[in-house]
Amino acid sequence: MRRWNGWGDDTVTYPLHDGPRRFLEGLVGPGTVPRDASLEAVVAAVPPSRLAAHPLVSDDPTDRVRHTRGQSLPDWIALRSGRIPAFPDGVAYPTTDVEVRDLIRYAGQTGACIIPYGGGTSVVGHINPPLGSAAAKGKGHGPILTVDLGRLNRLRHFDEISQLATFGAGVTGPDLEAQLRARGCTLGHFPQSFELSTLGGWIVTRSSGQQSLGYGRIEKLFAGGLVESPAGTLQLPPFPASAAGPDLREVVLGSEGRLGFLTEVTVRVAPLPETEAFHAVFFPDFEQGREAVRQIMQARLPLSMLRLSTAVETQTTLALAGRERLIGALERLLALRGVGDGKCMLLLGLSGREALVKTTRKEALGIASMYGGVHAGRTFGREWHKSRFRTPYLRNTLWDLGYAIDTLETATDWASIPAMVDAIEAALRSGLEAIGERVHVFTHLSHLYPYGSSIYTTYLYRVASDPDETLRRWQVLKEAASLAIIARDGTISHQHGVGVDHLPYLAREKGPLGMAVLGDLCQRFDPEGIMNPGKLIAEC
Amino acid sequence: MRRWNGWGDDTVTYPLHDGPRRFLEGLVGPGTVPRDASLEAVVAAVPPSRLAAHPLVSDDPTDRVRHTRGQSLPDWIALRSGRIPAFPDGVAYPTTDVEVRDLIRYAGQTGACIIPYGGGTSVVGHINPPLGSAAAKGKGHGPILTVDLGRLNRLRHFDEISQLATFGAGVTGPDLEAQLRARGCTLGHFPQSFELSTLGGWIVTRSSGQQSLGYGRIEKLFAGGLVESPAGTLQLPPFPASAAGPDLREVVLGSEGRLGFLTEVTVRVAPLPETEAFHAVFFPDFEQGREAVRQIMQARLPLSMLRLSTAVETQTTLALAGRERLIGALERLLALRGVGDGKCMLLLGLSGREALVKTTRKEALGIASMYGGVHAGRTFGREWHKSRFRTPYLRNTLWDLGYAIDTLETATDWASIPAMVDAIEAALRSGLEAIGERVHVFTHLSHLYPYGSSIYTTYLYRVASDPDETLRRWQVLKEAASLAIIARDGTISHQHGVGVDHLPYLAREKGPLGMAVLGDLCQRFDPEGIMNPGKLIAEC
Repeated sequence: MRRWNGWGDDTVTYPLHDGPRRFLEGLVGPGTVPRDASLEAVVAAVPPSRLAAHPLVSDDPTDRVRHTRGQSLPDWIALRSGRIPAFPDGVAYPTTDVEVRDLIRYAGQTGACIIPYGGGTSVVGHINPPLGSAAAKGKGHGPILTVDLGRLNRLRHFDEISQLATFGAGVTGPDLEAQLRARGCTLGHFPQSFELSTLGGWIVTRSSGQQSLGYGRIEKLFAGGLVESPAGTLQLPPFPASAAGPDLREVVLGSEGRLGFLTEVTVRVAPLPETEAFHAVFFPDFEQGREAVRQIMQARLPLSMLRLSTAVETQTTLALAGRERLIGALERLLALRGVGDGKCMLLLGLSGREALVKTTRKEALGIASMYGGVHAGRTFGREWHKSRFRTPYLRNTLWDLGYAIDTLETATDWASIPAMVDAIEAALRSGLEAIGERVHVFTHLSHLYPYGSSIYTTYLYRVASDPDETLRRWQVLKEAASLAIIARDGTISHQHGVGVDHLPYLAREKGPLGMAVLGDLCQRFDPEGIMNPGKLIAEC
Repeated sequence: MRRWNGWGDDTVTYPLHDGPRRFLEGLVGPGTVPRDASLEAVVAAVPPSRLAAHPLVSDDPTDRVRHTRGQSLPDWIALRSGRIPAFPDGVAYPTTDVEVRDLIRYAGQTGACIIPYGGGTSVVGHINPPLGSAAAKGKGHGPILTVDLGRLNRLRHFDEISQLATFGAGVTGPDLEAQLRARGCTLGHFPQSFELSTLGGWIVTRSSGQQSLGYGRIEKLFAGGLVESPAGTLQLPPFPASAAGPDLREVVLGSEGRLGFLTEVTVRVAPLPETEAFHAVFFPDFEQGREAVRQIMQARLPLSMLRLSTAVETQTTLALAGRERLIGALERLLALRGVGDGKCMLLLGLSGREALVKTTRKEALGIASMYGGVHAGRTFGREWHKSRFRTPYLRNTLWDLGYAIDTLETATDWASIPAMVDAIEAALRSGLEAIGERVHVFTHLSHLYPYGSSIYTTYLYRVASDPDETLRRWQVLKEAASLAIIARDGTISHQHGVGVDHLPYLAREKGPLGMAVLGDLCQRFDPEGIMNPGKLIAEC
């Protein structure tokens, strides 16, 4: 069963041995095991529902607890501590587009506001009940209805000739891939949340999969679909391309539930690759690795993934993997080739036709070796691929050891990458100096473009005994890193979206006219402001 | 010097020999040479300017004639016959963004409306002075100021590391490529209008270049820039990618001058390819060729171009080329390999790294041969490449022989391609049956995607002695083809935009909510409705 206050299925664990535990203690000090609230206690404290009865709406307190927060660190702190300031008043599970329209009407008539819910894996607060100023403003202060789209999950149409598949938007990653795989195809969209998140969620948050280099970001895979909004239905035809005015798919992408429900989605699928492999290359330092991946990208080689870790991330990953013998052998091999303690791991994915993969591998490894990269075969790539959806489970383990771990990300051009990485890491590393707490920080570049890259930074710090203090530490760190990002003109999010956590920083990149356009869009689709108020933009 | 009433430079001609002329006569009958108006007569008939004086604005009648129409067939008919219902009242040539802002202010203060002008190559009426209902509606009925951006053409910034180049938006194709080439780069955007059209024009009309398969459509190449609008400046930061809400670049793309002026553009450039070649393959019929290119696309081979002609287009192209000996040799070769009169030519472009090009060529030709494709080497590809910007000059020659030629295009999924090609061709071929005129029609697929393709159809008919009748014939044909396109859910334009000619069909694909969104955008950027009224949407 799905964990109500942590990641994933509660039968899956990610145990850490003594070596990795001591490694963590050495980094930030020993953790204090936090005291978690029980589900029973939280359920018992859920206030009565303010929603008028409706046949599709459940007001069961357990349903409401299970839909109240996502997977941001503030969400974790709230759920683990039981200090949860707001719950949805009800949860609906529509099974058809007609039922979705019915729920929109019901909300409009009863003064409720609506939160569209996909897999509940948002890390920026997309599906949280509105609080504070949003709740006090007259708009969105009524009862809150969370609409879980998980039952809109059927394959509705499959066009083998055109490689287009139409799904209910609530389909999760594994269900979607299983249905495509049976037809010899794949979407190729594998965000880390893949096992729980949904197609519709990917689109309205502009998600990017681990192999977006080969298959494209969700923007490219999203051909068209249906949006059900308070103002009516928007149909997005699945043209291969069009010059007929502004592209309305691009305002649905990233709309974060503000415009309505994406109920049906047509995606562009690909044949299952003839062959697929993930190779590891180790560089003597990050600078050389960074130059190599930039050259590989600018040579326009058709790879399906590149992921370059800093020295600290490489060291941390290897230490937490806990496979001392394998790592010892690797380090001896690398030492012979002049790659020492500063080593940085690059994972390089190749997917597709045999002949093309072979040529691409040779070209890419050739460029890597010009920058001192040592090819270490497929073992580390295989390990990564095997556990690529398991990594988030580590968060459960770390929390239980007294450590909070979070990630943040941006994207910028290649020329700005070095200073941006340094600035973000420095902001986080020194963020808790005032209270004498250490923060362990590491980074990778995982979504690369010929003209720039995403920067994905992980930071780990100790949980405090008071959950409010744990949250305060997060706020300090998040703000410091976000200010570092916007000061250097990075985007506030490359792949997580805006939600509530990034909302204070959005105007910086959109500008006043741009923010007004977003407000106009909300107003047009949702004149009464009932759709997911307080997310993406403060009000509309 | 640029022709005022035809295509291109007036020193460049495209002569046709007797063979091709007889071929045309055989198709639609002998042409009647039309009587063109002279520039002097048209200039003499230009009414006085209604604009208040401004140091940046010229009211010279020749300037005004030279900016009054684009390159659509209705534009040709108007210019050739001298029956021109409206002229801009003045033309301005700003040299800085500040001057652009100044002109917007001036227009707002004097009640003028503004037409942003790039290369004047629109084929759908983008830069024409508003007429009729738009002019009568109170909005946009004042004097008309055309603002030619051709002097905003400097390279403003070049970031070699990130492969980003920032230009004034009025830079033409050749000027842009010359500056990039000097730095070892290319944009790789080569629409047929390349020699005259501008970067800003490409973006606001969602242009697609001949090698978009390799380099991407302009949507992908456009990283960011500046829009100067009546409501202020919109800055679009050149992130490699972002998940921070809807992508505002995508509402500027295709905005057709309705929102303001794109003054500055940052584009993503690519290194000049190590090697480049265009191969020809001939298929026994269109069905086999179509299946081959679909398989090539779905195999995700990194080609830079595919262009498959129908049998009629192949025959017409070869006949007009007038190189009987070469073509005779080709036909003997093809006959030996079982490819006869139904032969369809595929041009296949390869650009990039030597090793990758080699593998890709082998794979692509391998798939082609499975569908009966016969590789005919690089001669025809070389010919095509040499004359790829020369083809539009044929329109001048044909007009002078009494033939009107026009093109139209759409895009749809692979499953719908066969019926769509048939429907468009049938609509055009039989379009003038009622008056006993023949129409010669042929088609190619030139912008291919794994999930569908563009369809680009050319049609040729005889010019009437009365220009109004020539226009009426065009209207009948254009309407018949457009109705065929929208009846089968194709987009009304894959690469030409909406302008005025496609405006009646836009609502069908955008829907009422979508059209309202476009109206809101205009309203937000241009509350008084002074920017290019009557284009893209009827009013706002």
